[in-house]
This record gives sequence, C-alpha cells and structure tokens, in this order.
Amino acid sequence: MKKTTFALKGDICYSKSLTELITLEQGYVICEDGVVEGVYHKLPEKFKEIEVVDYGNRLIIPGLIDLHMHAPQYTYRGLHMDLELLEWLNSYTFPAEAKYQDQEYARKTYGRFVDRMVKSATTRACIFGTIHVEATLILMELLEKAGMQTFVGKLNMDRNAPDYLREESPQQSAIDTRRWIEESRKRFVKNKPMLTPRFTPSVTDEVMVELKKIQQEYHLPFQSHLSENRGEIAWVKELCPYADYYAQAYSHFGLFGGDTPTVMAHCIYSGEEEIKDMKTGGVYIAHCPESNMNVVAGIAPVRKYLQEGLHVGLGSDVAGGATENLFVAMMHAIQASKLRWRLVDETLAPLTAPEVFYMATKGGGEFFGKVGSFEADYEFDAVILDDSRIPDQEGLTIEERLERFIYLNQEDDVKAKYVAGNRVL
Amino acid sequence: MKKTTFALKGDICYSKSLTELITLEQGYVICEDGVVEGVYHKLPEKFKEIEVVDYGNRLIIPGLIDLHMHAPQYTYRGLHMDLELLEWLNSYTFPAEAKYQDQEYARKTYGRFVDRMVKSATTRACIFGTIHVEATLILMELLEKAGMQTFVGKLNMDRNAPDYLREESPQQSAIDTRRWIEESRKRFVKNKPMLTPRFTPSVTDEVMVELKKIQQEYHLPFQSHLSENRGEIAWVKELCPYADYYAQAYSHFGLFGGDTPTVMAHCIYSGEEEIKDMKTGGVYIAHCPESNMNVVAGIAPVRKYLQEGLHVGLGSDVAGGATENLFVAMMHAIQASKLRWRLVDETLAPLTAPEVFYMATKGGGEFFGKVGSFEADYEFDAVILDDSRIPDQEGLTIEERLERFIYLNQEDDVKAKYVAGNRVL
Repeated sequence: MKKTTFALKGDICYSKSLTELITLEQGYVICEDGVVEGVYHKLPEKFKEIEVVDYGNRLIIPGLIDLHMHAPQYTYRGLHMDLELLEWLNSYTFPAEAKYQDQEYARKTYGRFVDRMVKSATTRACIFGTIHVEATLILMELLEKAGMQTFVGKLNMDRNAPDYLREESPQQSAIDTRRWIEESRKRFVKNKPMLTPRFTPSVTDEVMVELKKIQQEYHLPFQSHLSENRGEIAWVKELCPYADYYAQAYSHFGLFGGDTPTVMAHCIYSGEEEIKDMKTGGVYIAHCPESNMNVVAGIAPVRKYLQEGLHVGLGSDVAGGATENLFVAMMHAIQASKLRWRLVDETLAPLTAPEVFYMATKGGGEFFGKVGSFEADYEFDAVILDDSRIPDQEGLTIEERLERFIYLNQEDDVKAKYVAGNRVL
Repeated sequence: MKKTTFALKGDICYSKSLTELITLEQGYVICEDGVVEGVYHKLPEKFKEIEVVDYGNRLIIPGLIDLHMHAPQYTYRGLHMDLELLEWLNSYTFPAEAKYQDQEYARKTYGRFVDRMVKSATTRACIFGTIHVEATLILMELLEKAGMQTFVGKLNMDRNAPDYLREESPQQSAIDTRRWIEESRKRFVKNKPMLTPRFTPSVTDEVMVELKKIQQEYHLPFQSHLSENRGEIAWVKELCPYADYYAQAYSHFGLFGGDTPTVMAHCIYSGEEEIKDMKTGGVYIAHCPESNMNVVAGIAPVRKYLQEGLHVGLGSDVAGGATENLFVAMMHAIQASKLRWRLVDETLAPLTAPEVFYMATKGGGEFFGKVGSFEADYEFDAVILDDSRIPDQEGLTIEERLERFIYLNQEDDVKAKYVAGNRVL
C-alpha cells in the first residue's frame, strides 16, 4: 500500500535532549504515515514528488504535551485565586465539578474547552474529568472528534468530598469505572482511559484495591496528585498509617510506576525516598509552576529531579493554572526556578528556555511513546507558530525567537496543528 | 468658554483605595475638559445633550501607570534571560543602548516602542532613555505626537560603563543634561524631563552634586534604581563610604524625595531605615515583579510597604520584564507575593487582584497628580478592554472579569484609550 507522505517547510526547532536544541532555518520535516521520516536542510531527491506545505518563516515545533489538567475546571480559570489548595477545592472546585452531573451542561462547556485545546499548541494531554461516567465520555467523544490524542480520567472520589460529589461506595466507584472503561474502549481510538483517583484524601483504601485490579485487567495508566501542599501531606499521613511518605499511599497498592505507567502532578515536597521510588518506578512528574504559584503551594525542585534522571514534563493544571497555554507554563517554570534558586537553594541552578521547551515536548511526550520530537520514527505532532506580530525580530536565531515566544506569545499565534500526521487546526 | 464634555458608557471599574474597588454595570463616566466630572449609574439630566460613546459591555478602567521602564531595551525584550543583573547589563544592555548614538536607529526603534505603548493599556509612564541627548529628544517627540503623557530621562553615566557608553566627565554630563532639559521644555508639553542617573554605580558624586543643582533650578522629578540585587548593594557600599545604606547614596545629595519627587525602582532589600526614609520623603516605589524574577533579583516585600503607608506602583521594567503589558505585571505581582509568603515570610499576606489593580492605577498614578482613578477631578485617562474573546464569561461580576483579565488578557484586547480626555487609540 502506498504511504501517505508530505513535508512541512519552515523554521524548525525541536529537542533531542534536555541540552540539545536542534534548529533548521527553512528546513523540511517529512511525515510518512503519521510518523516523522526525518528532518532535512534540503528536500532529498526521493521526496521530490511529495506535497510540501510551505509555512514561510514561521516556526515549526513538535506539539506540546500537557501532563496535567482538569477539564471541568476550565470554566472558572483565572478566578478566585485568593485561597490555598484545600479551601479552594471546597469553595470553588467541588461545586463547579458537580454541575457535570448534567450532560447538557457537560456537552456545552466541554465543547468550549475542547475548542480552545484544539486552538492551542497542545497535541497530547493527561486530563482529569469528574466522577461522572457520562460527562467523561462526552469529553472523550469531543476530543476524539477534534483529533486530539489524550488520556482522560473519570475521577474516583468516595470520601472527604461533599455529598453531592461523592461516589456512594467503593463498589459503586469500581462499577462506574469499569463501565466507563468498557464504553470508552468501544467508542474511542485516540483518546484513552486513565485511572484517576483525585488524590489520596478523596479515595478509600478499598477503591485503591479495586483500581489495582482494574489496572491489571485493562493495563491502563494511572495519574494522581503527589506532595503538592504541606497540609495535604499531613492529612495523607493521618489517613494512611501504612505510608511513611505520600508516595507509599499509592505504591502500597501497586499504583506507582513499574507495570503501571504513572503521572504524578506537582511533587513539590518529595523527599529522598519518594524521589527514589519515582526513579525506580519510572514515574512521570507533571510540573505545574503556575498552579503552584496561584494556589500558593510552593516551587518544585525541578533541577534536582532532572539531575536524578527523573521524567519531568509540564502541566498547565487548569484551573490551578489560569491557562491551557503551555508557553505560559514554560515562562513560569523558568521564573519559579529562578526564585527557588534565589530564595531557597542556590545549589539548584535555574531552568533555561531550551530546558523547559524540552520538558514541554519530548520530556512529557515520552509518556505517550515516541512523541514530542522530530527525530525519526516519532509520531508526527507538529505546531506552526506565527511570531511575525512581534516587532524587532530582525537577525534573531530560531533559538532566540523561541525564547522570546515563550514570554510574548498570544494564543492566536498558533496557525496550524498536526497530531500523528493529521491536521487538526 | 464652552466646556468640552462627553461620556463613555460601559462596565466601569476603578479603585478608590487599596481595598475599595468601585464597579458600575452599564455606567457612565463623564469627561469635562480632560478631567473626570463624575461616574453615574444613570446619565444625569444636565448631561442629556452630551455625546455618549457606548462601549457596550466592554470594561472601562483608568489608564495604567508604568512607573519604571527602559525604552532602549524594548528591542531585546524576552531575550537573554540567562544572566543576573550586573552581567546582563554588561553583556546585553550596554551594547544595545550604545546604538542610540545613531539618530536614525533611534527614530526607527523608538517608533516601534511608542507604537506598542499606544496600543497598550498604559497612559502614563516613567521612562529611562540612554545617555544620548538627541535620541532622548526623539523618544519624547514620538511620545508627544502619540498623545502619551510621560516623564522621560536622559541617563547620566560617567563611571563603571564601557568607554562607548560613558559620559566623558561630570561637567559634560551636566552640560548635556541641561541642554536636553532646555530643548525638551521648549518642544514638549505632555512629556517632561526627569532626572535619571542610571544607578549609583554608574554616576560619580560630582554628577550627583550637579543633578541636585539642576533639580533645584528646574524643579524636576528624579528616578533611579534602589536595592535590587545584593551584589549591587555591596558595590554601592564600597563606592559610597558616606552611605550606611543604599538610599543614603541618593539622600546624601538631597535626591531622595522631599522637595524632589522621586521614583525608586525595585526596593527588594530595603531595610527599616531605608523604608523610613522612603516614608519621610514620600518616595514612590516602582515594584517590577517580572523583572525581579527574570534577572533573579528576588521578591520585594510589597505588603510591608503597603502596611507602612508607602506609595507603591507597578513597573514593567522592560526589558528586565519582557513586556510593556501591565496586566502581566499585575499577575506576576500576585504570584510573586504568594511565593514570598510561602517561602520567605508568612507574616506578609499575598496581594489580591484589587490591590495590584490599585497599584497599577491610582497607586502609581498619584505620582502624576490626580491620575489613575475615575473620582471627580482626576485627569480623564481611560482604557476600553474587550474581554469577549474569553469564553465562559456568563454571570461574572465586573470584579471577576477584571481578575480573569489579569491572567488571560492579550495585547489586542485594548480597544480604545484616552489620555487626559484625548483619544489616542
């Protein structure tokens, strides 16, 4: 069968590693059946017949990867930033999430969320939904139609939540979770279920036991929150006498990496043992710097995690973070690392623009397989950025244009987007 | 003589004080000869004949006040964010500023800067230029033509600068400063000279003595930098044996408030004595949170300054800050205050959205007189913001829309702007 092959031409920029940023002025990136064939300064002879989409001097980068966000919180992003995490959940998050009981409401608001996601530079994401099976299926249906490729989680919450947003029993939580998984596997190819207990305080041990059974049955990945806030950490210690530190509240049930691909959001206060467990288990850290500022959580020691060789990607954490725009997350990641260096620990050097770009692409992308780079055999996720709106660009290198874009981009600057070779914007 | 009177109609929002945010849905703000006559829920009978510009449900706020920015650094904003202050000055700032020796270059690049300033929500600013008289006059000419109202400073720098950017003597520095003042007073009405030694390490005591003489002769305001960086503070201590703390390097020459209206940028490490001097002298603090992150300076204790009753406004500090957009400065001010609270001092509560809005309007505006509010007799600076691009706005109050706008605005959202009653955008 003939392969579907095409090229994008423009100013190309991608990461090979944390410290290797590759740039090509007026280069070509070739897509063959949804996968990157290669990147070239000149179009090779064997490709001279293929379609070339010429994006002029626009930037062509791999799609961005959002390792942590809450779709139902999108409606109130940028509001009520006056509380810390636990109060914020009770005052704003839980009432907002309860509305997703109503499928019509879910379709309307998730529709807006997905519309904005498509227009953003993000191609892949790990997304929290609510406890509602139908609303979560609607979210996945909309993402599927839009051509996004994500992991989505129906939440588990059977304790420490208001009556109106609590699953009635561990058994019911497991039944609903299975029903949602079966349905979503029948209906969706690109958007897949991910096991998602909200966080340890929200789920009983019984639910965790059930989730491990389900994980083994369906081989699903797993996501939750870890060591975001000192109050939360103390609470977990109380709730889980078997756990010497927070990670053990997951690993106790076999839900912390290893044969369970795992993303943990935040990891601000992870100690040496927790770090060791993340390393052993190959756990991905979703660093969410804006959220960590907004809900006054703190600043994660990202440099230390990188030095330890842990997997670190970026998360917008909408609506702890106000925007789905991951360039803003890159800016905040640099700024937060600088403040941490200045105020907390001068042994951990600030993050650089190429480093946060790596985290937002290949760093988080590897959770999805070969995703987040233009190296050969990576899935062809590409985003076209127009920075011509910004004055004073004469003579800048692609790397400089990328750095400036991190600080000065607007959402409308995303001009086209491909996910696994399919154009979605 | 008949007065020029008109009204703007829309969703109005302004600060009366740090804690009093006034909002009127579909209200009227009346301009009479460039000054606010009043704000009304219904158009008073006596004004029924005046022109009413109806901005629908757009937000109408006072113009924003940028208390600290460097116009010649605009060309490289958002670039080279990998160094601390003193290295950054030598590597990037000084070479960039030297180009303003060339008047053609100055006209071209300052033209772009002024174009962006007009399109921003800023109506007033305190702007650093370079040491060059002609380039600084060109900047003022462009601002004047554009209808902005600013203070602009030709810099003084006669030590610790590269040969290509150092005034040859204190005498020449004074001669150039006088020539620039005389010229600008002849040519410009709305844009006024402000004495601007770059910072203490850049100017000899002889220049400071000359500047005080000039200040007394022309009654000009004064601006510089204060306590931004520990390395800088130690250097000032070395250079000025007569100064027990940084502020005395200015007050020693009578250049720190009192009869010299003064703006000091940053004030991150000001101790009790410096705070007392700022209070006594009525010195305005230009808080520049993004710059303080980007060049790894630290976080100013703004809550403390507010508690002490000091004047605090916001500054973009382009290009330590990457953008002239003061909504971004408001976001960073809140976020930085939260991190300072969490990481440094839990006695100083984080800043709120209404507080940073106050700082960006009336707080800094008072340096310009009755500026920064829609209270009666304030100069009529108004900005019209269109937030309809943002989804999920149903049912929000004006205060909530303002908070969200701080996090999610784009520069194109500024739809119209009035400075002292004149429409400039």
